[in-house]
Amino acid sequence: MTEIRPLPTYLVQRFHGWRATTYQDNRAWYRRLAQSGQHPRAMVISCCDSRVHVTSIFGADEGEFFIHRNVANLVPPYNPDGEYHGTSAAVEYAVTSLGVAHIVVLGHSNCGGVKGCHDMCRGHAPELEEKSSFVGRWMDILRPGFQAVAHLPEDEILQALEKQAVLTSLANLLTFPFVKTAVDDDRLTLHGLWTDTGEGGLQQYDPARDGFVEV
Amino acid sequence: MTEIRPLPTYLVQRFHGWRATTYQDNRAWYRRLAQSGQHPRAMVISCCDSRVHVTSIFGADEGEFFIHRNVANLVPPYNPDGEYHGTSAAVEYAVTSLGVAHIVVLGHSNCGGVKGCHDMCRGHAPELEEKSSFVGRWMDILRPGFQAVAHLPEDEILQALEKQAVLTSLANLLTFPFVKTAVDDDRLTLHGLWTDTGEGGLQQYDPARDGFVEV
Amino acid sequence: MTEIRPLPTYLVQRFHGWRATTYQDNRAWYRRLAQSGQHPRAMVISCCDSRVHVTSIFGADEGEFFIHRNVANLVPPYNPDGEYHGTSAAVEYAVTSLGVAHIVVLGHSNCGGVKGCHDMCRGHAPELEEKSSFVGRWMDILRPGFQAVAHLPEDEILQALEKQAVLTSLANLLTFPFVKTAVDDDRLTLHGLWTDTGEGGLQQYDPARDGFVEV
Amino acid sequence: MTEIRPLPTYLVQRFHGWRATTYQDNRAWYRRLAQSGQHPRAMVISCCDSRVHVTSIFGADEGEFFIHRNVANLVPPYNPDGEYHGTSAAVEYAVTSLGVAHIVVLGHSNCGGVKGCHDMCRGHAPELEEKSSFVGRWMDILRPGFQAVAHLPEDEILQALEKQAVLTSLANLLTFPFVKTAVDDDRLTLHGLWTDTGEGGLQQYDPARDGFVEV
Repeated sequence: MTEIRPLPTYLVQRFHGWRATTYQDNRAWYRRLAQSGQHPRAMVISCCDSRVHVTSIFGADEGEFFIHRNVANLVPPYNPDGEYHGTSAAVEYAVTSLGVAHIVVLGHSNCGGVKGCHDMCRGHAPELEEKSSFVGRWMDILRPGFQAVAHLPEDEILQALEKQAVLTSLANLLTFPFVKTAVDDDRLTLHGLWTDTGEGGLQQYDPARDGFVEV
Repeated sequence: MTEIRPLPTYLVQRFHGWRATTYQDNRAWYRRLAQSGQHPRAMVISCCDSRVHVTSIFGADEGEFFIHRNVANLVPPYNPDGEYHGTSAAVEYAVTSLGVAHIVVLGHSNCGGVKGCHDMCRGHAPELEEKSSFVGRWMDILRPGFQAVAHLPEDEILQALEKQAVLTSLANLLTFPFVKTAVDDDRLTLHGLWTDTGEGGLQQYDPARDGFVEV
Repeated sequence: MTEIRPLPTYLVQRFHGWRATTYQDNRAWYRRLAQSGQHPRAMVISCCDSRVHVTSIFGADEGEFFIHRNVANLVPPYNPDGEYHGTSAAVEYAVTSLGVAHIVVLGHSNCGGVKGCHDMCRGHAPELEEKSSFVGRWMDILRPGFQAVAHLPEDEILQALEKQAVLTSLANLLTFPFVKTAVDDDRLTLHGLWTDTGEGGLQQYDPARDGFVEV
Repeated sequence: MTEIRPLPTYLVQRFHGWRATTYQDNRAWYRRLAQSGQHPRAMVISCCDSRVHVTSIFGADEGEFFIHRNVANLVPPYNPDGEYHGTSAAVEYAVTSLGVAHIVVLGHSNCGGVKGCHDMCRGHAPELEEKSSFVGRWMDILRPGFQAVAHLPEDEILQALEKQAVLTSLANLLTFPFVKTAVDDDRLTLHGLWTDTGEGGLQQYDPARDGFVEV
């Protein structure tokens, strides 16, 4: 593949800096993780957005979290049709192979994917409605969530829809038989979070209030 | 959803610690990122594995990388069939909405997904061959890559297959018209990396040698 | 000593987070504890095992418990031979210098040290029988306890031996003259506990039944 | 043993509170830890002092640290004489059975054991010099460290001796063949810390300066 290029120099330099410092200080641990395998406590499902840093927020180091990141931190419903399902594969691997104890779905403010879903559901984004739009079809997962918030005023609806993305993913997770069984057996707990990346806030879903409250 | 639980206390404490330190020190930047939007320079596609930390390796901070993580850092071929394609949606969003300048595919050592593919292709993992196995069907993406390495001795084949996963993803990326056009227009470059998490090594694909060389 | 390394970065970050939150909120108390000295109510003797968290189980804060942790929560018999006796030193300091009112011996499930003792007493762990095995020699303390449970069926013996470790430590504590006197003078009480770390259970030794009962 | 008493009511109540809250929220993880075994990253050697809380300082939860606590966080030199060596057994178990990647020795301010050593070395604590004093004999480990600081002014000597306790333990750790080999093979790193419990400070040993510097 002649199209493949060498890594930009600034990344090469940063890598060598990391290797001479952080790696040296943690080599013993990284080697042990390589030899004895990973035993992450939790799976985190978060957005690809460059402003979302789950390991930073929770002071986590290598080995702690099994992390899946996709557009708008969505989990589609269970559908074992033999096709490619990257998110479902990640959930299956985390629950059945690694036996994680927690799945944390982490939504966030200013989510571009959620904004696209909002515009599409409002009829303002015809390009996202085309069959060939991968983002549009992916955000279809959140369409039912839009119905739940469509009545809200303009300045509240996007944040509410970002939280619906978290709740939709949690509800869809429970449609996977191996997730439901693990939850019922108290081998797995599910958690819903939403972070305001600009203000450094963190809210979690509280089923007692059926809403999000500050952590 | 009564199944949803509060966040474990130790994570709550760590979050408050992060908010009082790292967040305070970077608030100006995080707020500006929230207000003016993200402008990541690169998209990184890496594995969910808890031992792979791309932001750490490259000393990256919030805002630098748009990160998609799935099992075995795979990109499926272009297939606009109207179904859910999380990886394709992430690539589309990065290239067409964010206009990233680079896509880096980062493979790694001791990859459980790649190991599963190897076992499946050898006929040693019947459970992964079932239609209902999300991991098995997802790893079907790498089946052609297995043919390319099947002749290698036992102690080389897994690492070679991990690198095939990177090459398969790069080749599949080029089947997306918007990726191919951006590459041809010099608006986007593609890069293939493989990291040895235990030894802190980093190799990149060099098309001149058609192989991986140390960075 | 050139072998000494800087603290891993993630622990540095977590420490600064703790200092900015928990420490700030409790500074008045921590300073008073530093100035007026510690006055712990109880000494706790528990295992080094990472799954045993006595402060968490009892909601304890700084200043409440004087905690000695060793392999299998063992106390050797009184033997003032002038050699190094770390456990005896801890007991002596707690009783004669601090005047604690209680000594709690806390055993636990899945204890690796107790398992080693079991295997050694069964003749299945020759490496633990070597003179140079510190773990083996330390677990010799529990050999008499093994005799008391050797007749039990396989699926009961390990838990029974874990409880024998608690009883052995309590019996050995009473061989220390300063412990015996304090107990006889009603200045000190002894307590024997066993916790099931997976199930969150807690049992205590009841002399009336000569057995362990749920707390 | 008729001397054994039931657990004080306030501890029983706290336990039930923990079980109804923290345990419920973390049951999935605690069960997995019970079933699949502990994989702690680090061994921590700290003092029994009730003011030293290593899990709190580092935001650690169950499963992260294998913790040995004794008077003055001391490690005696390697001496495989077949006698009981609780500290050596803990180090052996951590390094050879668990394969921890780090050993952290954590000293602290206002250490009563170190104060006793100081008084004893100054000839002001004859009771500690008796053969039958377990604390005195245990603190003999630190006598060589006293020589290194004996010239310091009164208001500096105790803190300097507390740091000597950390250095003495680190030096003694390197006399254990299995520790030395693991360090030489880059499978294990050693770290020396000293915390000011009242001020919430943390210093680490820096071999380049041969002294302690703020973390």
